[in-house]
This record gives sequence, structure tokens and C-alpha cells, in this order.
Amino acid sequence: MTPPTNLRLTLPLTCVILEVILIILFAVLVEYDHETDAKLWHKHLLQHNDSNYNNDFYYRYPSFQDVHVMIFVGFGFLMTFLQRYGFSSVAFNFLIAAFALQWATLMQGFFHGMHGGKIHIGVESMINADFCTGSVLISFGALLGKTSPVQLLLMAVFEVTLFATNEYILLSILQAKDAGGSMTIHTFGAYFGLVVARVLYRPQLDKSKHKNCSVYHSDLFAMIGTIYLWMFWPSFNSAITAHGDDQHRTVMNTYYSLAACTLATFAMSSLVGPGGKLDMVHIQNAALAGGVAVGTAGEMMLTPFGSMAVGFLAGTISTLGYKFLSPVMEKKLKIQDTCGVHNLHGMPGILGAVVGAVTASLATREVYGDGMEDVFPEIYAGNFSASEQGVRQAISLAVTLGMALVGGVIVGFILKLPIYSGPPDTICFEDAIYWEVPGEMESQEELGTVMSEEVQKPLNS
Amino acid sequence: MTPPTNLRLTLPLTCVILEVILIILFAVLVEYDHETDAKLWHKHLLQHNDSNYNNDFYYRYPSFQDVHVMIFVGFGFLMTFLQRYGFSSVAFNFLIAAFALQWATLMQGFFHGMHGGKIHIGVESMINADFCTGSVLISFGALLGKTSPVQLLLMAVFEVTLFATNEYILLSILQAKDAGGSMTIHTFGAYFGLVVARVLYRPQLDKSKHKNCSVYHSDLFAMIGTIYLWMFWPSFNSAITAHGDDQHRTVMNTYYSLAACTLATFAMSSLVGPGGKLDMVHIQNAALAGGVAVGTAGEMMLTPFGSMAVGFLAGTISTLGYKFLSPVMEKKLKIQDTCGVHNLHGMPGILGAVVGAVTASLATREVYGDGMEDVFPEIYAGNFSASEQGVRQAISLAVTLGMALVGGVIVGFILKLPIYSGPPDTICFEDAIYWEVPGEMESQEELGTVMSEEVQKPLNS
Amino acid sequence: MTPPTNLRLTLPLTCVILEVILIILFAVLVEYDHETDAKLWHKHLLQHNDSNYNNDFYYRYPSFQDVHVMIFVGFGFLMTFLQRYGFSSVAFNFLIAAFALQWATLMQGFFHGMHGGKIHIGVESMINADFCTGSVLISFGALLGKTSPVQLLLMAVFEVTLFATNEYILLSILQAKDAGGSMTIHTFGAYFGLVVARVLYRPQLDKSKHKNCSVYHSDLFAMIGTIYLWMFWPSFNSAITAHGDDQHRTVMNTYYSLAACTLATFAMSSLVGPGGKLDMVHIQNAALAGGVAVGTAGEMMLTPFGSMAVGFLAGTISTLGYKFLSPVMEKKLKIQDTCGVHNLHGMPGILGAVVGAVTASLATREVYGDGMEDVFPEIYAGNFSASEQGVRQAISLAVTLGMALVGGVIVGFILKLPIYSGPPDTICFEDAIYWEVPGEMESQEELGTVMSEEVQKPLNS
Repeated sequence: MTPPTNLRLTLPLTCVILEVILIILFAVLVEYDHETDAKLWHKHLLQHNDSNYNNDFYYRYPSFQDVHVMIFVGFGFLMTFLQRYGFSSVAFNFLIAAFALQWATLMQGFFHGMHGGKIHIGVESMINADFCTGSVLISFGALLGKTSPVQLLLMAVFEVTLFATNEYILLSILQAKDAGGSMTIHTFGAYFGLVVARVLYRPQLDKSKHKNCSVYHSDLFAMIGTIYLWMFWPSFNSAITAHGDDQHRTVMNTYYSLAACTLATFAMSSLVGPGGKLDMVHIQNAALAGGVAVGTAGEMMLTPFGSMAVGFLAGTISTLGYKFLSPVMEKKLKIQDTCGVHNLHGMPGILGAVVGAVTASLATREVYGDGMEDVFPEIYAGNFSASEQGVRQAISLAVTLGMALVGGVIVGFILKLPIYSGPPDTICFEDAIYWEVPGEMESQEELGTVMSEEVQKPLNS
Repeated sequence: MTPPTNLRLTLPLTCVILEVILIILFAVLVEYDHETDAKLWHKHLLQHNDSNYNNDFYYRYPSFQDVHVMIFVGFGFLMTFLQRYGFSSVAFNFLIAAFALQWATLMQGFFHGMHGGKIHIGVESMINADFCTGSVLISFGALLGKTSPVQLLLMAVFEVTLFATNEYILLSILQAKDAGGSMTIHTFGAYFGLVVARVLYRPQLDKSKHKNCSVYHSDLFAMIGTIYLWMFWPSFNSAITAHGDDQHRTVMNTYYSLAACTLATFAMSSLVGPGGKLDMVHIQNAALAGGVAVGTAGEMMLTPFGSMAVGFLAGTISTLGYKFLSPVMEKKLKIQDTCGVHNLHGMPGILGAVVGAVTASLATREVYGDGMEDVFPEIYAGNFSASEQGVRQAISLAVTLGMALVGGVIVGFILKLPIYSGPPDTICFEDAIYWEVPGEMESQEELGTVMSEEVQKPLNS
Repeated sequence: MTPPTNLRLTLPLTCVILEVILIILFAVLVEYDHETDAKLWHKHLLQHNDSNYNNDFYYRYPSFQDVHVMIFVGFGFLMTFLQRYGFSSVAFNFLIAAFALQWATLMQGFFHGMHGGKIHIGVESMINADFCTGSVLISFGALLGKTSPVQLLLMAVFEVTLFATNEYILLSILQAKDAGGSMTIHTFGAYFGLVVARVLYRPQLDKSKHKNCSVYHSDLFAMIGTIYLWMFWPSFNSAITAHGDDQHRTVMNTYYSLAACTLATFAMSSLVGPGGKLDMVHIQNAALAGGVAVGTAGEMMLTPFGSMAVGFLAGTISTLGYKFLSPVMEKKLKIQDTCGVHNLHGMPGILGAVVGAVTASLATREVYGDGMEDVFPEIYAGNFSASEQGVRQAISLAVTLGMALVGGVIVGFILKLPIYSGPPDTICFEDAIYWEVPGEMESQEELGTVMSEEVQKPLNS
């Protein structure tokens, strides 16, 4: 006897309760910061003889919008590759993200430091909220097609909380650097999701196997997601780095890393494909690994050719992971990773953390000059040596993996309760279970008939 | 006997005449403003010892581009949900918008004040022209599938003129605030379109009923439009507010309003759906109502939780409108509103106007500080009390509704003449009437055969 | 006996060799410029008492991102119009562009002047690299469906080199102006591609004719490309013009040119279509000709109405070219131009060059004031008269055509060797030759059956 999948009770209740809690907490805890508050900003203008043009809005908002596109179009459409799960992919992505960005505002605000008991928000908190949301969407990728929206919202509640905690440990306690989130976003999101997928293992998923694949047009929709993620990844990695050379350099490193990664992906995909043929799954995903792999080191003096080498390696690892590792993980480890987030976010995230640790440990005043203050403030202040910074980066990776694994197990078991309207093994990867799905397009022949009878005459008149 | 639908005479003639008139009027009336004119800007630089970096281009153009994407991709793809009207949806949207933005430059330039008999244009006039265009596209949504491009161009001629008049009355005479256009754009566009749809009522539209619905992939194309509108709505509402805290705050208010609106939409859609199933029409449309509803108050000190409450309410009203009100409006009021613009733009627009009026009437110097000058210059100058501002906002809503209703009736009757190549009731919602529509994709089997005969050998060599 | 089409050896080898060469050359030759290097920028800040907000990143990066979208989404999706070539269109576009932007960094860096033996890179070099890439993608459009990715990569190697040479001759030796690339990008890319297509003429292409056309949804995917190109063309033409009035004015001229072009395209398409029906090919392509045609003169004082007149002319020429010229070119000149790049980039590019030459020759100090220094530095410095500038613009067009024709012939013969896994005449325009193509979507009936048996009960519970 399968549990009910009807959402009528569970989804409205979950959404309304969560949103009401959010509104109340925002009412009590959240205030405009000094750049969004009318009174405070005008006081600032007067006191510092400053200009409206120096409001940080103008120096962060274009980056924010690019990140926003990655979250909603990039992740949303990347997951539409399944033949009968396009509605759920793009719309559940939409729902979870809309919830997570609100909840992240509170959780991150709490950890980033309250101001007189209040959380202050502006464009930078919006970017951080979108970042945290990205991590949840990565986990969603591992679970795609096998969970109800209620489960996903509940996962977001816990994952955002853990994300903010982990981020706080890394950035504030360990003083690690991770502007593009190789560790905080990608490694955490991927391994958290993989562990949840392991706990939610579905032994009879084979019965939905025929729907766990793409069709021609669904692969094209997915490419919309891929290309947007690829194009805007330089904005993602640079969105919260220091102003000036830091943002500028991060963008360039990411740009070249991704370009090299793309060539590696095509090379490897053809090399391992049957008859030398390319596989859309590789192009859609592995070509992005170069962005993940410079998430930590992108703001550092990685050099353009260093970025390209890292990107090339990331694309290679990721493509080979899709081909050889994913099947093994499913069979041996019982991890059913729908989107292969281990290959796109997991391994490249770890690579990114390692590259970051190595690059940090090689930082010298000779290379960074006074720019050291922005990239490694603790080294600049003489509190750490470069090698200590490197060690702290490495510890951060270990902490992130630990948080993801422990958190994933606990949350996985919470999500396993049969009360969230989840789908049975036999009807996974299927929109019709949660959506009113329209019929197919009228066949051309029928239309032809209609046209010849009704239209031809007036058309030719 | 149905009138002819052949466009050969009517469409080229309309396009060429309109464009020639536009070019002549631009030649006579339009000049670069002091930020786009080579001589004037360099004179300004010299006289004020100013920097090229202070050209307003850098502080408005990113917002403009986001608005531009909403107009052409957002509106255009949102309307591709119909199974056999994708070409017309995206391409007529393209045509009308390309015309309307030129015509709006003239109409708004005329009302915004001439400079020595000339209209001065720059990035701000471009944003305003795109805004006015948005209003026409909202009306198009009510008429989608039932009108020829000639009718739509003609409607744009009149609607742009009325829009500019209404905008002038609201912003210049009544001194109302409406930066995101809850009244000027959404309420006006929706009710104008609904009245036109009423006048153009098609009693036999049932005969095209089988095409007035979506198919699986057309709903995904529509989601491209939805997501872009949703993501960039913060840019829309903030595009022409004052620089500094005003733009920054408007963006944040809109961001949170939309997020809350999305949760409300999913909740309500599942609550009222058969078997608790979600309806794509709701997600595509009602999730956007939160942007409309903070169009007026977004720049005010609405507070983040206030924005969320308004967004939540807007999503609820809008979804319930699709479910319960639209069928009644069609049956009882004979308003055939193809895209349900009453639910997405009409009711949320009125809600936005009311929220704006209330928020304005509560404005105090205590809360706004010197920022009052940017948001409510008349209150700041002591010309109005806050409550008078609120009253003026409320009057503006009434004026807008009046202009839309009277204008819609007149324009509706003009568009009813049988000389514009409009479609008969029996062939509405059908691209083939105006487009050369390609055949369907070759079936996989045929290709399989081709492949096995011709390709396999060379491929395996 | 057809040559093998298996990519297993050729594609991985080409990608890996090219990328390894790129990484080595970048290691030896490429450095961060003074705005992306941590040490140099902070030295600059100190020495000039400058602000991070004045890093050129903030004044070029939004334009760069728009250009980036045009290259990867615009060109990529515009070419998905073919029914069975969507994977190759968007993904080969992706591959070639990812390679070309790296190679262009080196080639343009070499010609733009080395700094102590090093190429300095920053956001401006990234824009230039994307521009050069655009030229290669235009040539790809002429060859679409008839070449292997190996051939395309090889073409990019040569074309980027020739592009950089031609650009150097035009901009540095002849001191011509061409900010939006009417000559350097569009004319060069189009005629180079057309000559290559001529050399690669396939006499038996008729055998693949049934696939050289669109289906309903592939035309909608192509419209994504069209609309993005159309919206962001103002950013393209203005991306590397001087700051201030120049960027601002270029954006406006392009905006109005494109709007007028769109009306002309709809008018002409309906005028020449069977039964007055519109043709998607025209809308997808000719509506963009207005952007090409103001690529040279966009930064000049062309006036808004002048831009509109040029756009109107470009749309007319381009649409008529698709209808009447393309068939003739294929039959008489044996040029098989898949995307009709002659109509979208070739003729409008020449028109743009001529408009640029005329507008330059009419430049007066009276009109430009001190802004003359930015637009025509040589006229401002008294080195040229306006008419000499015009003559140099005209010579530049001739040089461009000559480079394209001679280069195209040579490269065409190199690409003709039967060693690049190119497709036979009988299987052109077909993804299955290079891709693992998924099956079709399950029919609705099957799903219906599955649902009624398995789902209905739990759903209604």
C-alpha cells in the first residue's frame, strides 16, 4: 500500500505556515541597512559629503542579477532535461528558491552579526541569500524526480540552517576565503544532497527507469540552463569579492577556466562515447565544472594560464565521472544521483578547495602588493603566514564535508517519513503526479484538414 | 461570409505608413539630450569639471536592459503557452513593441516637456518608452489569439497616446507617485485591454476552443517568460526611481514581495486544484502578481515584511482569480481574457494602487528623514500633507480606471471594423492563418531507417 | 566510398592539442593588466588617490555580459531552427566560441601592442575576444549542418588570425572607426564564410534537403536567439566606444535602428509571402539587420531619425535578400548559405560600412564640439579632414572584402581535405551523426494508461 501523493493538504499547509513564520520573523528582526534606508542613507550623504552614485547598489546589483539568473533560469532549466519532469524541474526549483532566499536572509543575517538585535539587509545580503539558495538547488539535483515539493521545502529549512552554520565556521572562525563557494556552496550542497539521496535510496527505482532520460527538445531546454550558468559564472564567483582588481580578476580567471573546461569536456565526451559520439549530458554539465573549480581561488592571483589548467582538469574529471563513476556509485553505494551533482559540484568543488588551499599557501607580498589586504587580510595584518592560510583552507574543506555528511544523514531520515506526499518508486520522474499535464499538440494532419476546410478560402481572398 | 484574413495589403501598408510617419516626426522633433549629444556633453564636462563616469548611462542602462528583457522575452514568451500560437505570440509581441517604443518616445516626450520645440532623448526616455510598451503588451494579453497584427498596431497607436495622457495627469498634474506603474502600466493596460476584449466579444469562440490551451512544451516556453519577468521585476520597479537608497530599496522590496507571492501561488494552486494538483497557468502568472502589487509602494519605506505581506496577498488573489473569477467574467460579462490579465495585472494593479495610497498617507519625516525629498517631494516641500498625498494617489487610481474604460470602449469599436484581416471565430488561436508553418519533425522511426542504411557504416568505420 | 565520420580520434586530439598550446602560450605571454593585477591596481590607487569604483570593470562589464549572451545564447539558439540539428547548433557554437575567445586573446593581444613582451588582459580584451568570436560564428552560420566540429575548430584557428590582422589594418593603420564591427565583424565574417561555403560546395546536398528546414518548436528555440541578439545589440555596438556620451549615443542609435528594422521586416515578409503570410526565417534574421547596419556609424552623430532610416533600409534589403537573392546564389554561384548570413551580415555589413563612410565624411566641429576627440581623434588633431576619414572608411571596406575573399579561398581548400570526419552529402543537417540522440517522448496514451492503473488511486486518496 503506497502512501498518498495528494498535495492538497500538505503543500498549502507547508507553504502558508512557512511564509507566515517568515513574515513574522522579518517584522521582528529585519531592517533596511544604511544604504537602503531613506533616512540613514541621506544622513550618510550629508555627513560624508557623498554622492548617490557611490551607493553600493551600483557596484553589486548587476552581479546580483546575473547570479539571480543562474539560480532561477540556470538551475531551473538545466534540470528540465528529463522527458516528463520539466514542469516540476523548473517550478519546484522556483518554489524552493523563493522560500530559501527568504529563510537564508534570516539565517545568514543571524550569523553575520546583528545590529542592535536587528538584521540589516541590502544588495550584499541578497547575493548571499541567492548563494545559499544555490546550495539547496544543488542538493535538489541529486533528488530530482524522487521527492515531493513538501519534502524539498523541508529539506531547504534544514539545509539553509546548516549552510549558514558551516559558512560561519569557515569564513568567520577559520578565516578561510571562499568567495565563489567551491566549499560552502558546491561541496556542501553536493555531498549533503548525495547523503540524503543515499538515505532515501529507492530499491525499485528501476520501474521508473524509462522516464529517467531525456527527449530531443528537453535536452535543448536544458541547454538554456547550461549556457546561462556558463556565461554568468564569472559574475557568480566575483559577486561578493572586494571591489576593484578583485572583482575584475575573479571574472577573468573564471572566464578562462570555463573556456578551457569546455574544450576538455568535448574531448573527453567524444573519447569515451560509443562510436566517438558526443553525449549531451556531458556538455550540459561537465562544461560548467571549470566555474566550480575556481570558486575559491578565482579571486587570488591564480594567473590566466593557471585558471585554464584548473578548468581543463575539472572538465576532464567531471566528464569521466559521468561516464565511469556515476554507474558505480549507484550500484555499489546505492546513491541515485539524478543530475550527477557529484560530477558537476562534488569533485570539482573538492578540486576547487584544494586549488584554493595551494594558491593561498603560495601567496607572497611580492605578487599581491597592497592588494594582499583585500584577498588575505589576515596574512596582510601579519596574523597568519601564507602556509597557515593554506592549512585553514584545507581544514575548511574537511569541516564542510563533515557538516554535509552528518547533516545529510539526519535530514535524510527526517525526509524519509511517509507523510510528505512523496511519489512511489513506480511513478518517479513524472510530472503528472503533481501537475495537471496538458494533452499533446494536435497532429499536423488534423490541422491540415481544419485548414483546408475552413481557412483556405478566406486566406486566398 | 467571413472577411478576408490575407495580410498582404494591410500589414505592409500599416507598417510602412507608420514607420515613415515616425521617421519624419523624429527628424522634425527629436534631438539627443545633453548626455548623448557629443557637443553638449563635452561642454558639460568642461563647465562642471565632471567625469564621463557620471554620465547617467552607467546608472540606468543595466536597469534598462533588464526592463528590455522583460518586454521582449518576458511578455513575448509568457504568451507562447498556447499550443498553436507560439509564432504569433512572440513575434507579434516583438512587432507591437518595436512600434510602440518609437511612438511612445514621441508621445511621452510631448507630455514630459519639450525643449525649444524639441524632444530630448536618452536612457531615461528609453526606459519610459519600454514601460509604455509594457502597457500595450498587457492589453495584447487579453486579446491574444483573436486579433490580427494590423489591429494590434492600430491599438498601440491609440493606447500609447492614452497612456501618455494618463501618465501626465497622474504624475504631473496630480503629483502622484507610481515608479513601478501599478496604476499607469498595469491597471491601465489591463482594464483597457479587458474593455477592448468586451467590445470585440466573439460569440462563437467556442469553435476555436480546442486550440485555446497549452501542450507540454509550450508550457515550458511560457515558463521562460515567467522566470525572466520574475527575476527582473526588481529592476522594473526601480528603473526610474531616484538614485541611491531609492533604487536600492525598491529592488529589495520587490525581491521579497515576489518571493512571498510565489509561496502563496503554489499554496493556493494546490488547494483549489483537482486532486491537489498544481496548475501551470497559476505558476506562470500569479507568481508575478507580487511585482505588480508593489509597483507604487516599492520605492516607499514599505519595510521588507510589509512587502512580503503584500506579495502574499497578491499571489492569493491572483490564483483565486484564475480559478474562480475568469470563468465568471467570460460567461456573465462576456469578457474573453485569453491570458487572464485581469488576475495578473488588473486586480494586483488595484491592490498596488491602494497599498501605495495607504503607505503614502502614513509617510512621516521621522521615518524618511531627508530621503523624503526623493520619495515625496511635495510633502518634503510642505505643499502637501501625507494624507493629501494618499488622497491624490487614490484619485489617480480612479482617473486611470476611467481613462482605461472610456478609451477601451472607443478603441474597441474602431478595432471592430472588418477591414483589418482579423481571424474568424472558427480559426482563432492558430498561427497558420498568418504564418507559413513548418511541418512536424520526421518521426524517429524514419530517421532510424535512414541512419541504419546510410550512416551506420561510415560511423562505425 | 565516403570518408569516416567517427570523431573519436580527431576531435579529442584537436581539442587537447589546441588547449595545451593555448595554456603554454598564455603561461609565456599573458599577464593581468594594471586593473586586474592586485599589486599594480593598488599601486595605482595609492599613486593617483583613486577609488576602486573607478576600475573600468564597473563601466564595461555589464556591456561585456550582454555581448557574452549574444555570442552564446544569441548565435547558439538562432541556429537551432533546423529540425534535427539543435544539439550541434548550440553545442558546436559553444565549443568554437570557447576556443576562439582564448585564441583571439592572443592574436588581438599580439596586434594591439605587447607590453615588455607580454599581452595585458582585462575586461576590454575580453570584449574584443568575444567580438572576434562573433565573426567566426557568422561564418559558422553559412556552413551550418555541413561540417564537423574538427573542421570548425580549424576554421576558427585561421579565421581568428585573419580577423586580428584585418582589424589591425583597419583600426591601427588606416585609422578607421568601426566600434560595432560592421566591417571587421559582420562583413568579414559573412564573406569569409560564404567563400568557404563556395569552396566546400556539396553538389549532392539535395539528398539532405528534407532535413534542411525547421519544425514548429525548433523555430521557437531560434526565436530565443533572435530576441536576445535584438535586445542586446545596443550593448554590442557600444561595448568598446569611448565612455560618456559615446556609449550612451551608440546605444540609442542602435535601439531605434532595430525598432525601425523590425517594422520593415514584417512589412516585406508579408508583402512577398504566399497569401500574404509571414515567414519565420525573415523575422528571425532580417529584424536584426538594423543592428549590423549601424555598427560603424552608431557612435557617430547619426541622429535618431538617421538611425531609423538606416534600420528600415537594412530590414528591407535583408528580407528581400532571403526571398530572392539566396536561391539565386545557391543555383548560380553554388554558395549554399544555410543561415543566409549574406542577408543578415553580408549586405547589411556593407550598408553599415557605407553609412559609416558617409557619416564620417560629413563630420563637423560644429556638430561634434569637443566630442570630436573621442569619435574622430585624427580629425580632432587636425591630421585628417572629414572627407579623408570617409575615404579611409571606404578603403577599409575594400580591404575587409579582399581579406575575406582571399582568406576564405585558402582556408576553404584546407578544410576540404577528407580527414576531418565531415558528414557525407546524404547526412547533412543531422545531429545523429555526431551525437547520441535520445528517443522521442512517450506518447500521451501510454502515459494515460500508466496513470490510470498505477496512480489514480493514491492520487485520489
